[in-house]
Amino acid sequence: MTSDSLAPVTVIGLGAMGRALAGAFLDAGHPTTVWNRSAGKGEDLVARGAVLAATAEEAVRASGLTVVCVVDYDASQAILEPLAGALAGRVLTNLTSDSPERARAAAAWAGEHGIAYLDGAVMVPTPLVGGPEALILYAGERPAFEKYGTALKALAGQAAYLGEDHGLAAVYDLSMLDFFYGSMSGLVHAFALAREDKVAATALAPYLNSIVAILPSIAAGMATAIDTGDYDGEQANLGMMAASVDHLLHMSRERGLDTGHLEAIKAVADRAIAEGHGADDWASTIEVLGLKG
Amino acid sequence: MTSDSLAPVTVIGLGAMGRALAGAFLDAGHPTTVWNRSAGKGEDLVARGAVLAATAEEAVRASGLTVVCVVDYDASQAILEPLAGALAGRVLTNLTSDSPERARAAAAWAGEHGIAYLDGAVMVPTPLVGGPEALILYAGERPAFEKYGTALKALAGQAAYLGEDHGLAAVYDLSMLDFFYGSMSGLVHAFALAREDKVAATALAPYLNSIVAILPSIAAGMATAIDTGDYDGEQANLGMMAASVDHLLHMSRERGLDTGHLEAIKAVADRAIAEGHGADDWASTIEVLGLKG
Ligand SMILES: NC(=O)c1ccc[n+]([C@@H]2O[C@H](COP(=O)([O-])OP(=O)(O)OC[C@H]3O[C@@H](n4cnc5c(N)ncnc54)[C@H](OP(=O)(O)O)[C@@H]3O)[C@@H](O)[C@H]2O)c1
Ligand SMILES: NC(=O)c1ccc[n+]([C@@H]2O[C@H](COP(=O)([O-])OP(=O)(O)OC[C@H]3O[C@@H](n4cnc5c(N)ncnc54)[C@H](OP(=O)(O)O)[C@@H]3O)[C@@H](O)[C@H]2O)c1
Repeated sequence: MTSDSLAPVTVIGLGAMGRALAGAFLDAGHPTTVWNRSAGKGEDLVARGAVLAATAEEAVRASGLTVVCVVDYDASQAILEPLAGALAGRVLTNLTSDSPERARAAAAWAGEHGIAYLDGAVMVPTPLVGGPEALILYAGERPAFEKYGTALKALAGQAAYLGEDHGLAAVYDLSMLDFFYGSMSGLVHAFALAREDKVAATALAPYLNSIVAILPSIAAGMATAIDTGDYDGEQANLGMMAASVDHLLHMSRERGLDTGHLEAIKAVADRAIAEGHGADDWASTIEVLGLKG
Repeated sequence: MTSDSLAPVTVIGLGAMGRALAGAFLDAGHPTTVWNRSAGKGEDLVARGAVLAATAEEAVRASGLTVVCVVDYDASQAILEPLAGALAGRVLTNLTSDSPERARAAAAWAGEHGIAYLDGAVMVPTPLVGGPEALILYAGERPAFEKYGTALKALAGQAAYLGEDHGLAAVYDLSMLDFFYGSMSGLVHAFALAREDKVAATALAPYLNSIVAILPSIAAGMATAIDTGDYDGEQANLGMMAASVDHLLHMSRERGLDTGHLEAIKAVADRAIAEGHGADDWASTIEVLGLKG
């Protein structure tokens, strides 16, 4: 494709991520219009061929696709609400990270104004934007996702459409972060435990990779167990695993290490055992994570 | 190598793991003697060529290398202490999982009796024992590890020697488990969060793999940061990450999900920020995990 045949696009918000997104559009040859609330940002993009619009409305009117990426949905709605008329009949893709609720509310607003709305979540840091490995999640109007498929691929080689519910990109984003922070917490605690016994973190790290290596198959097995409710613990049961966590708790306490997250993990496992899941697998703990019941 | 040139070996303890270990020795062609406290175990091994000894002492005297694998160190010491004389001058490898303290105490006992002692930890489930991917960690007398290198390779393709401190296999084992349970907890919570918004676990699982994929480089970077004390947070700082955990906390509370481990993670991050690590990376939280100070 030559740049003549590529769709004109607009990027609103020129923070670190907005600039990376606009840069990826330019690299791919899309005619790119940009705008930012505060002046002084985007000069480098103009030097690379972008048009800096004088107003947000002018920016939006320049293209059939507008991508907005600002700090949060309070900021994006502050920019977008006055532009409802200009956006009508166009595609709006919001790559601002926020909650599923905010994404759904914005989608309802867009629907009222005849704006085709996609919510998205950028799952990589700025240097990876535009590359083949970059992952951006999308949810909302499928025809909009398909119409601008080429443009969205310019932002991330992995452009994943999750479904019609506009909150889905945020749901996946949050769930992935939830797993991420649990792992990060375990990682630092593992290094702390090793350090108490004079094992360098760089000596331990390669061994931790052998745990990382089994996580995909554990995640897949756990997912099937959760979706089917079949928590058979033949391979490794919760009772045994809770005893193992208890052992870690004791070792950590003896070394004077914080045990907050281990206590929380143990409490969940104990609750699941009390509800009869002792011979089930670890996935069964999901059944006691809900507080509403 | 023909079986004539392979060292005779003894396995004490014929629970699930002991049987797997003895089976791997037999598969590799080692003359194998076995013993278990209760009768009735090991008949299948005898059918495969093992010799079932009448007493533990007879078992130990049959080989230069004895591997013991029972439920815990109370059990292994109960078996081994009366055998000090028979074990003198031989190599004893204890693959029973327990604490670094117990391993060091057993090593001291072995040292007093002229027994060359290796402590080990089996890092795979029984079906993988003996295979090329199987990992067993060893610590203690290096000459013993080297003398029986061929036999120990028969138990696990990955036989890793960690150092002279007999507690090291247990330290690595516990640290790996520590990381494992943190990840498991995050994994189940991620599935729970997704489920609240009607996302199936099997739909989410492939996306979690993109988090798994970044863990090795994060672990390596974190390890270097911890060993050098250089917690530069240029890529992602603790302040931003703590806000992200806070966001997860709110989302989880709104959905009525248990937030115990997230609260514990947030508390650690907040403590690190209060101590001046807000612009540092997540690895810096290790500095506030010690309670003794
Ligand atoms: N950076 C990353 O690595 C990364 C990775 C994945 C996702 N994200 C997500 O991408 C989004 C943007 O992040 P970023 O790194 O680009 O943030 P940033 O560098 O801090 O930029 C913030 C942007 O938001 C604008 N903004 C803030 N308050 C506003 C308001 N009230 N009205 C109008 N505009 C306002 C700023 O405009 P001014 O210049 O006028 O202040 C600026 O364009 C966030 O949701 C973030 O979670 C970022
Ligand atoms: N199974 C696994 O997947 C796995 C994986 C990694 C590590 N491990 C470790 O391997 C070790 C053994 O586990 P396992 O799965 O083989 O356990 P198991 O199937 O429960 O077998 C326990 C063994 O310990 C013996 N034992 C228990 N109490 C004893 C005592 N007071 N005196 C003498 N012998 C006693 C039992 O003998 P009796 O038959 O006489 O009761 C039996 O041989 C444990 O430390 C475990 O953590 C196991």
